[in-house]
Amino acid sequence: MTDAASLARRVRDGDLRLHELEDHVDHDTAATARRLVLEAETDADLEAIGSYGFDAEAAESAIENMVGAAQIPMGVAGPVSVDGGAASGEYYLPLATTEGALLASVNRGLSVLEDAGGVDARVTKHGMTRAPVFRVSGVVEAAETVEWVEDNGERLREAAEETTSHGEVIGVEPYVVGDSVFLRFAYDTKDAMGMNMATIATEAACAVVEEETPASLVALSGNLCSDKKPAAINAIEGRGRSVTADVVIPGELLEERLHTTASAIVEANTRKNLIGSAKAGSLGFNAHAANVVAAVFLATGQDEAQVVEAANAITTMDARERGATTDLYASVSLASLEVGTVGGGTKLPTQAQALDIVGVRGGGDPAGSNADALAEVIAAGALAGELSLLAALASNHLASAHEDLGR
Amino acid sequence: MTDAASLARRVRDGDLRLHELEDHVDHDTAATARRLVLEAETDADLEAIGSYGFDAEAAESAIENMVGAAQIPMGVAGPVSVDGGAASGEYYLPLATTEGALLASVNRGLSVLEDAGGVDARVTKHGMTRAPVFRVSGVVEAAETVEWVEDNGERLREAAEETTSHGEVIGVEPYVVGDSVFLRFAYDTKDAMGMNMATIATEAACAVVEEETPASLVALSGNLCSDKKPAAINAIEGRGRSVTADVVIPGELLEERLHTTASAIVEANTRKNLIGSAKAGSLGFNAHAANVVAAVFLATGQDEAQVVEAANAITTMDARERGATTDLYASVSLASLEVGTVGGGTKLPTQAQALDIVGVRGGGDPAGSNADALAEVIAAGALAGELSLLAALASNHLASAHEDLGR
Amino acid sequence: MTDAASLARRVRDGDLRLHELEDHVDHDTAATARRLVLEAETDADLEAIGSYGFDAEAAESAIENMVGAAQIPMGVAGPVSVDGGAASGEYYLPLATTEGALLASVNRGLSVLEDAGGVDARVTKHGMTRAPVFRVSGVVEAAETVEWVEDNGERLREAAEETTSHGEVIGVEPYVVGDSVFLRFAYDTKDAMGMNMATIATEAACAVVEEETPASLVALSGNLCSDKKPAAINAIEGRGRSVTADVVIPGELLEERLHTTASAIVEANTRKNLIGSAKAGSLGFNAHAANVVAAVFLATGQDEAQVVEAANAITTMDARERGATTDLYASVSLASLEVGTVGGGTKLPTQAQALDIVGVRGGGDPAGSNADALAEVIAAGALAGELSLLAALASNHLASAHEDLGR
Amino acid sequence: MTDAASLARRVRDGDLRLHELEDHVDHDTAATARRLVLEAETDADLEAIGSYGFDAEAAESAIENMVGAAQIPMGVAGPVSVDGGAASGEYYLPLATTEGALLASVNRGLSVLEDAGGVDARVTKHGMTRAPVFRVSGVVEAAETVEWVEDNGERLREAAEETTSHGEVIGVEPYVVGDSVFLRFAYDTKDAMGMNMATIATEAACAVVEEETPASLVALSGNLCSDKKPAAINAIEGRGRSVTADVVIPGELLEERLHTTASAIVEANTRKNLIGSAKAGSLGFNAHAANVVAAVFLATGQDEAQVVEAANAITTMDARERGATTDLYASVSLASLEVGTVGGGTKLPTQAQALDIVGVRGGGDPAGSNADALAEVIAAGALAGELSLLAALASNHLASAHEDLGR
Repeated sequence: MTDAASLARRVRDGDLRLHELEDHVDHDTAATARRLVLEAETDADLEAIGSYGFDAEAAESAIENMVGAAQIPMGVAGPVSVDGGAASGEYYLPLATTEGALLASVNRGLSVLEDAGGVDARVTKHGMTRAPVFRVSGVVEAAETVEWVEDNGERLREAAEETTSHGEVIGVEPYVVGDSVFLRFAYDTKDAMGMNMATIATEAACAVVEEETPASLVALSGNLCSDKKPAAINAIEGRGRSVTADVVIPGELLEERLHTTASAIVEANTRKNLIGSAKAGSLGFNAHAANVVAAVFLATGQDEAQVVEAANAITTMDARERGATTDLYASVSLASLEVGTVGGGTKLPTQAQALDIVGVRGGGDPAGSNADALAEVIAAGALAGELSLLAALASNHLASAHEDLGR
Repeated sequence: MTDAASLARRVRDGDLRLHELEDHVDHDTAATARRLVLEAETDADLEAIGSYGFDAEAAESAIENMVGAAQIPMGVAGPVSVDGGAASGEYYLPLATTEGALLASVNRGLSVLEDAGGVDARVTKHGMTRAPVFRVSGVVEAAETVEWVEDNGERLREAAEETTSHGEVIGVEPYVVGDSVFLRFAYDTKDAMGMNMATIATEAACAVVEEETPASLVALSGNLCSDKKPAAINAIEGRGRSVTADVVIPGELLEERLHTTASAIVEANTRKNLIGSAKAGSLGFNAHAANVVAAVFLATGQDEAQVVEAANAITTMDARERGATTDLYASVSLASLEVGTVGGGTKLPTQAQALDIVGVRGGGDPAGSNADALAEVIAAGALAGELSLLAALASNHLASAHEDLGR
Repeated sequence: MTDAASLARRVRDGDLRLHELEDHVDHDTAATARRLVLEAETDADLEAIGSYGFDAEAAESAIENMVGAAQIPMGVAGPVSVDGGAASGEYYLPLATTEGALLASVNRGLSVLEDAGGVDARVTKHGMTRAPVFRVSGVVEAAETVEWVEDNGERLREAAEETTSHGEVIGVEPYVVGDSVFLRFAYDTKDAMGMNMATIATEAACAVVEEETPASLVALSGNLCSDKKPAAINAIEGRGRSVTADVVIPGELLEERLHTTASAIVEANTRKNLIGSAKAGSLGFNAHAANVVAAVFLATGQDEAQVVEAANAITTMDARERGATTDLYASVSLASLEVGTVGGGTKLPTQAQALDIVGVRGGGDPAGSNADALAEVIAAGALAGELSLLAALASNHLASAHEDLGR
Repeated sequence: MTDAASLARRVRDGDLRLHELEDHVDHDTAATARRLVLEAETDADLEAIGSYGFDAEAAESAIENMVGAAQIPMGVAGPVSVDGGAASGEYYLPLATTEGALLASVNRGLSVLEDAGGVDARVTKHGMTRAPVFRVSGVVEAAETVEWVEDNGERLREAAEETTSHGEVIGVEPYVVGDSVFLRFAYDTKDAMGMNMATIATEAACAVVEEETPASLVALSGNLCSDKKPAAINAIEGRGRSVTADVVIPGELLEERLHTTASAIVEANTRKNLIGSAKAGSLGFNAHAANVVAAVFLATGQDEAQVVEAANAITTMDARERGATTDLYASVSLASLEVGTVGGGTKLPTQAQALDIVGVRGGGDPAGSNADALAEVIAAGALAGELSLLAALASNHLASAHEDLGR
């Protein structure tokens, strides 16, 4: 009996618990044993899940109770030229997805963007946030705490920054609701997405707050951060990177390549992305930015649950006259794109290679420039996806209008 | 020179475009050629990405411009007993993630839920939606269109259902904004997540609307669906499955296993998940439901971009007196969980095997019951994640309170 | 010593409480006595507040602890022709406000609308809502309750309608969050705004729910109504009347009367009302609809606190080519305009006279048509306000653009 | 024929327009003439509207096309002790409303608050905002503009403050969406509500921005202010005053005076105001704060349309153990309460007298303290309203629970 089989037996006999296997054998054998347990108990055949290509022990910081890996098809779109604050030059975009047609659509969009001379992009705001919630006795203590915080930014900064060699405090914003005080800390976390850095630094700052004020910490995250929830505070104030990509597409190109016009695209964007989203009570004024964000996140080892807020985007389309021709101004603004090129999932093999495709693996020079560039390239990809889908809607609409005329 | 190398050369020479390779060679060779192009142009080594374990040709419906696969570590949590409308018995939960500690946290939560006697769960509403937007000349035509739609539900149903052997129209809801009319169609799509089914059926119904009313279709999706955007309409009216999981945890168990009390957990939930989210202008009144939703979605082949709305959840925690003991009522209600057990990414090998771990691969009997069960199990997992994180906050808080007392 | 003076003395001596005066004297004397108390205790001179022109006893259903009246300046705008579902012909609009320039602005807008041939308007949805919240033991009972409600609509309708001679149940929509069940009842309340009618009818229906299901009523309003709070549920599903007013304004008229162009107005509307509101996380995609709603509400005796949701509006502006000229399509859609022409504040003298100015005092024929007409006329007024303000922005912008050119 | 009759005739003959009358006669006669026109054209009798008690000419800054006044019944609630940052001592609260029972409910609440020792209140943030929107060519210019603004705060401050003797710039926050740049200016406007001051000052600052950057002003208000729309930006970041009032009510008092318990009130608040509002996609987590805000606004000459955002409030209720007794912590936090004690409607007679009742008419010493005090007193009133309504729900619930037990 193999080690794995024997371990599996002990688990099934109740001698061992599923999460204890790494205490007894190496990580690969533990994963094998778990698969054996599951195969015995569920009729599943887990061979494909067991065919992973990374070092199980190295994956320890990413997973517990490992059984193997999910394999998500990855494709590549581009290249597209991005003229950004950090990005500069031609970029391929790796996308991991199971949604058919997505990659083709993004690729078509990027190709038109490229023919239009490439994309401009800028990170217009940045800051990874953590917002603990404190309990006070009431608003008198709340006001006292807020005042102390406003007067002692430097002390909080020192306490926070002692915990990190890279991170820097950008600011602390207080919010009061009854006997709860929230402090929203924002950090420059350079090329790291930075949640852990922000959490640890904030914890140290909270200790000072507790020492010096009547406030007592209830939760290191009080949901004003706001992590992995779709919150207006992120859509308004940003989290991670706020990044915009835009382009002006000549009318001729719209016609030749996308079989539509600026005004038809503008109409589709206005009725669907602006008015439709307004009526839906939405925080997302776009067509499908989440598709691109999610697919690049998966490919490059970002936190897949942060797609929730990272996909918060406003797409604008505007017709611009140029002599007798009407060009299209198109933009996507992502308010809270949390990305990193170091740490977390970026260290896994396929993810690191995908970052190499973009050319932004590891720390940038200057620090933060790789993550900025990744943000700008993702924004370019999202713009391609928006353009492609809206153009398809607009050209269908035109086609159908032509049919109507033909009747 | 291999076929792949020769193709790569032709692409780099401008003879071929990256997306045309499958016209000339088999899918695996095409993927290899793309990797060669990228390796030459970007300095990336793409060996790991090239080590995928599925049939590249079969993945054609999931990806274009394929280069290989992303490998995401997968673990398993549980088992937990779920007493649902469709789920019944013990379930393991497969989670694919790169966020360390997530799986351990969910596993700890599930273990406490199991010790509390397992989880109750119910799908309380269902319906995959598609909401086209039409142009009319103004509100007079809008009112006329709405009236026609309200009077001709049966005709719309027939047109829609002719396109599908499984799907059924649940209803059509009209919304008017100026000269735009939105019709939100809801479908029972059984075990399929159902976006494609809903889109095709709605297209057919739209043709009837265009024929019989003054309305002219602008976009098959007018963003009141609302797909892949965080929208109040989904949080309120639901999309896919609206599902709740809940449990009552005896006070003794809270103390022994989670080192905290019902009232400490209730406080953390109220200040963070209710008041904090309220202040943040959030649609997500939970701690980290997105973590569990995203990880199960990835493992089981769901649409990763739908995590945006699928993670919309309200977590409630309530203290319940039982004699001298205080128990905890805990619930998570996911409003718009879009899941399927057939079609899309569920057909890929690792994803299909993960569905086998849950025991819900393929069509259920009765139809829809597998997707219902998957929704209920995900809700149970989300509940475990919420419980585990809130308990950790609460026990830290208690610990720190004890330290305070010890001073 | 007058009666009032003697009463005031007794209050100040602690013999009587301020709210008990009507037990001893007539309502006017009671109000006088209160003013005397306040004048003595606060140095205020309350003569103007005491100069009210209505029957204090008749106002008893509108106020307690009466001291007099606030006088709000009232003006009139119009006339404007409204071609509505209920409104038909020329209307003057009474507005009570203290915001200078508002009336002039609305008047200017109405005058342009009139020159454009008048306004189209329609109520596209109606229903006054009340949404009680019930406690159940958990989701199992919640699902049971929802199922009972869905199966027993007729019984609920009967119970509800027994309490009212006019109101009719339109529907009941259930929502589940953990161990809370919300039922959103919608009523046709004819010419009454209908909150009281809806509340009383819902109370009767709740008694049936409590009798037949495990659910136990916690609050007759569970905030999914949603009354006097800015909630997406109202912006999406409507409350009271959902009403749209629109117009097409010839390009020539824009130039002559408003000194601007369709495209300049469209730009201002898109950047401010659509994109700006999107970025602000707003439920109000308009410039200042609340100004008109609030001022007509005050003038005509509506509930001033309902301005909160009654002002939820989306303004759209669209350029429409007509030969070489570009006309402007302009619309305002108010989602949840709660108005009545009978009951409540509409019975007071100045308010009743203001309703007479509009020609909609009292019950309509058919029932509900007066309140529908009032809603349509308010929408026309809001449209005038939007047009006027956006045109002013656009013409300033044009003016400044001209100056730029002149440099 | 009187002057008024003759003027009315000329209007009806088309010789004069309704808004031109003040050019020919005094303001009272002009109003009379308008009433005559309306009476002739609409069958309305406008005597009550004509019985106003203020100087029509002085009201010129508040109204155009004046016909008279709306009279809204005014009552008084209190007194209640408020221990605020600015408020200190006993206060009566004037409320103008037509909603029966509102005043009695607030009065009952204030009485309980008084018996609990009075209310604590604090303004925790302040700043009247104006957020113009500029057009740039794209994100490159947007980033350039943002950078200039961040580097030149002092110049903007100087330009803005030159226009006002009282106002001070607190800060300027930039936001980018595609080719739109929004700058949110915040001002300390002292005792004025400050919209006009903020608008004029911002206009001056915009001129500098236009001169020094590529940005071109499209609208002085770009809806990120956000004025008279229910927007998350105000609920999060505040506008006008962010103010909290709170209290701890002894359990005995709850029982004696409100016939309920802390836990019953907490349950009603949690299910209705927190969970219900969460499910409704609401920005208002309270029961009926708008009722109190609207009624005080009317009485004291505030801008009635600003009730929309001024009523944004979160109500919290928490049970606090005290030995064997359970007390209730109750709070209301209004995020964006725009109030003033000078300017605008506060100068009208009844409104000025109502401010005298509160003791805050005119400029405070120090400047701003009167408006702060008014904000704190309104918060106390809103707290009373919340307490009273929730207690009524809770005691009904208890009563019904008792009946259940009695069966």
